[in-house]
Amino acid sequence: MRSLIDVLDFSVEELQELIDTANDIIARPEAYSQICRGKKLATLFFEPSTRTRLSFEAAMYELGGQVIGFSEANSSSSAKGESVADTAKVISCYADIIAMRHPKEGAPLVAAMNASIPVINAGDGGHNHPTQTLADLLTIYREKGGFENLTLGLCGDLKYGRTVHSLINAMSRYAGTRVVLISPEELKLPSYVKKDVLEAKGIPYEQTTNLEEAIPGLDILYMTRVQRERFFSPEEYLRLKDSYILTPEKLRGAREDLCIMHPLPRVNEISVAVDEDPRACYFKQVLYGKYMRMALILKLLKEAKAAGKLGVDMSQTLTDVLFCRNPRCICSVEQELKHVFKLSDRENKVYRCLYCEAKAN
Amino acid sequence: MRSLIDVLDFSVEELQELIDTANDIIARPEAYSQICRGKKLATLFFEPSTRTRLSFEAAMYELGGQVIGFSEANSSSSAKGESVADTAKVISCYADIIAMRHPKEGAPLVAAMNASIPVINAGDGGHNHPTQTLADLLTIYREKGGFENLTLGLCGDLKYGRTVHSLINAMSRYAGTRVVLISPEELKLPSYVKKDVLEAKGIPYEQTTNLEEAIPGLDILYMTRVQRERFFSPEEYLRLKDSYILTPEKLRGAREDLCIMHPLPRVNEISVAVDEDPRACYFKQVLYGKYMRMALILKLLKEAKAAGKLGVDMSQTLTDVLFCRNPRCICSVEQELKHVFKLSDRENKVYRCLYCEAKAN
Amino acid sequence: MRSLIDVLDFSVEELQELIDTANDIIARPEAYSQICRGKKLATLFFEPSTRTRLSFEAAMYELGGQVIGFSEANSSSSAKGESVADTAKVISCYADIIAMRHPKEGAPLVAAMNASIPVINAGDGGHNHPTQTLADLLTIYREKGGFENLTLGLCGDLKYGRTVHSLINAMSRYAGTRVVLISPEELKLPSYVKKDVLEAKGIPYEQTTNLEEAIPGLDILYMTRVQRERFFSPEEYLRLKDSYILTPEKLRGAREDLCIMHPLPRVNEISVAVDEDPRACYFKQVLYGKYMRMALILKLLKEAKAAGKLGVDMSQTLTDVLFCRNPRCICSVEQELKHVFKLSDRENKVYRCLYCEAKAN
Repeated sequence: MRSLIDVLDFSVEELQELIDTANDIIARPEAYSQICRGKKLATLFFEPSTRTRLSFEAAMYELGGQVIGFSEANSSSSAKGESVADTAKVISCYADIIAMRHPKEGAPLVAAMNASIPVINAGDGGHNHPTQTLADLLTIYREKGGFENLTLGLCGDLKYGRTVHSLINAMSRYAGTRVVLISPEELKLPSYVKKDVLEAKGIPYEQTTNLEEAIPGLDILYMTRVQRERFFSPEEYLRLKDSYILTPEKLRGAREDLCIMHPLPRVNEISVAVDEDPRACYFKQVLYGKYMRMALILKLLKEAKAAGKLGVDMSQTLTDVLFCRNPRCICSVEQELKHVFKLSDRENKVYRCLYCEAKAN
Repeated sequence: MRSLIDVLDFSVEELQELIDTANDIIARPEAYSQICRGKKLATLFFEPSTRTRLSFEAAMYELGGQVIGFSEANSSSSAKGESVADTAKVISCYADIIAMRHPKEGAPLVAAMNASIPVINAGDGGHNHPTQTLADLLTIYREKGGFENLTLGLCGDLKYGRTVHSLINAMSRYAGTRVVLISPEELKLPSYVKKDVLEAKGIPYEQTTNLEEAIPGLDILYMTRVQRERFFSPEEYLRLKDSYILTPEKLRGAREDLCIMHPLPRVNEISVAVDEDPRACYFKQVLYGKYMRMALILKLLKEAKAAGKLGVDMSQTLTDVLFCRNPRCICSVEQELKHVFKLSDRENKVYRCLYCEAKAN
Repeated sequence: MRSLIDVLDFSVEELQELIDTANDIIARPEAYSQICRGKKLATLFFEPSTRTRLSFEAAMYELGGQVIGFSEANSSSSAKGESVADTAKVISCYADIIAMRHPKEGAPLVAAMNASIPVINAGDGGHNHPTQTLADLLTIYREKGGFENLTLGLCGDLKYGRTVHSLINAMSRYAGTRVVLISPEELKLPSYVKKDVLEAKGIPYEQTTNLEEAIPGLDILYMTRVQRERFFSPEEYLRLKDSYILTPEKLRGAREDLCIMHPLPRVNEISVAVDEDPRACYFKQVLYGKYMRMALILKLLKEAKAAGKLGVDMSQTLTDVLFCRNPRCICSVEQELKHVFKLSDRENKVYRCLYCEAKAN
């Protein structure tokens, strides 16, 4: 059985299959309007994320299915101390597929390892948010006609922005990708992403602190929200949050066919005055996200017929030998969860937590 | 495209059309049970109002449609600082029609101006609550056989009770309406409603502080809740909340065909002992509210086929010249929202905020 | 019309009818997948209980019906002071059947006495939780092939565990039942349950503090959660919560066909290592709970066609003569609710509150 925990769980071929399905849904919605009749999606949101939750629910309804779930932890059994593993086993009795949002990194993987139905990671803390990346990819595919030879500009919070890291990872698999990193010093892309992804895959990239100068060379401008909750002090947040606000003025030198994206919600990183610009694609991105979630639900339900729980490759792992110290990892709270580390870099003997991917130390 | 922000957005003819549809739904429910198949209603409740929300959801399900949404702001993106305008644009990607409840006055209008789907105002602070008025009107129509020559008694909180103001406005458009205002001094109908509505339309009215004496002359007795949240001090609330409690004793002199109404929820304005009285119509009112919401959803979805966003008459308006100072207005919180004032009274040069209708000062 | 307030509202024959229906649903799910088309279940959860709520919602969807409702009191009208009686009358305008969870004992009975649709008690404080007992009974029936001549071991919190009291009550109606009570001194089964149920019905039972010694003699081992909220001090909770944890070691002497049950959620009363044991039935119990709720909804909707409100036997009752002093009883908060006491033991002149069953004193 398949689940979606990290967007890289899917090969380039599988991603193309999802994109083809999404395009077919857009072309022939009525052909899909009853395809999930009698199926149920469980939206298990241990922290609120209305936009993501409603996108999944709209997706399931447009496939003719039903939805059960909760939108906050305080209305969930976890308040009574139920483990994620038990919740996954219980929900497997009620639904056909799970979309889980959880503040702890790796929680959806724990759910997938215990559920008897597919699990979709709808965001696990600052770790992964693969369906956002699926939305981004369909937007790029439809707006640019494909994934090759594109110059991708990423602007704002490149340090904590998980959607940025996932998108870089996903785009690094296509030929001719070039990356321009636009951020203040304090929010630069972490060096491990540069090293392990950009450099490892030979992706040319440059770093700059100047948005306006970078714009003219871009095919895609991906703006990100500066999240209050990622900052250590309110002062630091206030000082930085207004950096890199996109305005019509800054777009003067931009290409005719620039594609402006944003994962939303925005605070004020993009002036409302830009919304009317035909190059503004961030609301189309929302719509495309729904279609990719429809395609994803269809793919996972189809593959769910292949019985058995999630097959996790346990080769080159250590169990209860190393222990995860990441306070944001599901390991820090889940009852009786074995600590598993996987050899991620043989040469340098780097082991990473199976759940949150934190390095062993 | 049409939205419903204020009950007066509809002409007398349009209201009659809604009433006719509601009566037909009551007569032939099965003819409507699949009419919204494949359509989705988004219930965006930025503050809780269970009864109103469930009425909309029941309405949509009885039309064969589906529902997505949230019941409180803390499980909404607004917690992350998303504007009402952006929420409206995002939800337009997920649903076919929106029912919005918001603590800020004018928020549903801002949503309607930005959504690409119809928006129903399900209550915006103390400002408007048009679907309650639609429920009231169907109740009056079915119980009294029409709207003409009726003596309408309104009792309780006439100062803050928005449903009272809307009902007076709506009934003032029918011939022969007479109004009896029953309240303590502290909660009398505001003079601007008397002047701008009752006197402007030549509606005969009287004011009294004595419920029992007023009852015999009434065709309709509209009781209202004394809302804790409208009071400045708990003491004042406690002193007044028990005023004007309807009991079987007070009904001794009432007409055989009196229609007793209440928007609900009640605290204790109507003794439970009155519930069994055949003249008690406040639970029928709940049922009729559901049918009017069904009729409203049908009308707006039909008119939604006419593309384009909400047409707001911007003639005689000033933009970013005058500024709204009402702390309860959506202007006080919405990002980059232009302040618009409309000339509401040429003779006296009165300008009112487009969103909350507060006078410019 | 029928409602389900206490599992003993159903005769042994009616329970068998529910079990037969549930077994038929399991055998032929497609025969039931549209049977509630056009019907609505209202899940009114005045306190959160995700597992129970989702079980009801999954049940209704698998019958082809729809669901409306709320998952917490703070998003309900009760925040505005609406009585349970009024809520029941209002929801009767929106739905066809109600499942109510409420922190006050007797609240679902008050709802059933005022609603014009059937009401299912989904848990009223520490009082009753009949659908959990229905789940337990189907599990026993399917795992043991019937209800007769079974030795039932109950372990953990036997003092406050309402599901234990209900199960003892239900099983005491079958021939050959034997009970083994396994708990620490502090959490022993209350003497009134022993006296009024076990002794009154002549059920042989023994009490022990040793789980491991008791296991070999059992057909069924019913483990219970030690609920933090039931304890007077956190210290006492911490001291007792780890007592009586079931492990593979303790199961060494157990029968081959032992049936291990737990109402869930568990904290750590059962080691995760036991989950893989074929005798572990607690997740099957979850699944069976859904099927019994489906059978229950079908039965009550069928009987709802018989008009009229819930028939409560008011013989041998006193109204507003005795007053309930139980602070957890709905009497303590419900507006204008008459206090009714019923003669439950003529010989000893014992009167009990109609709502919470507390003894008059």
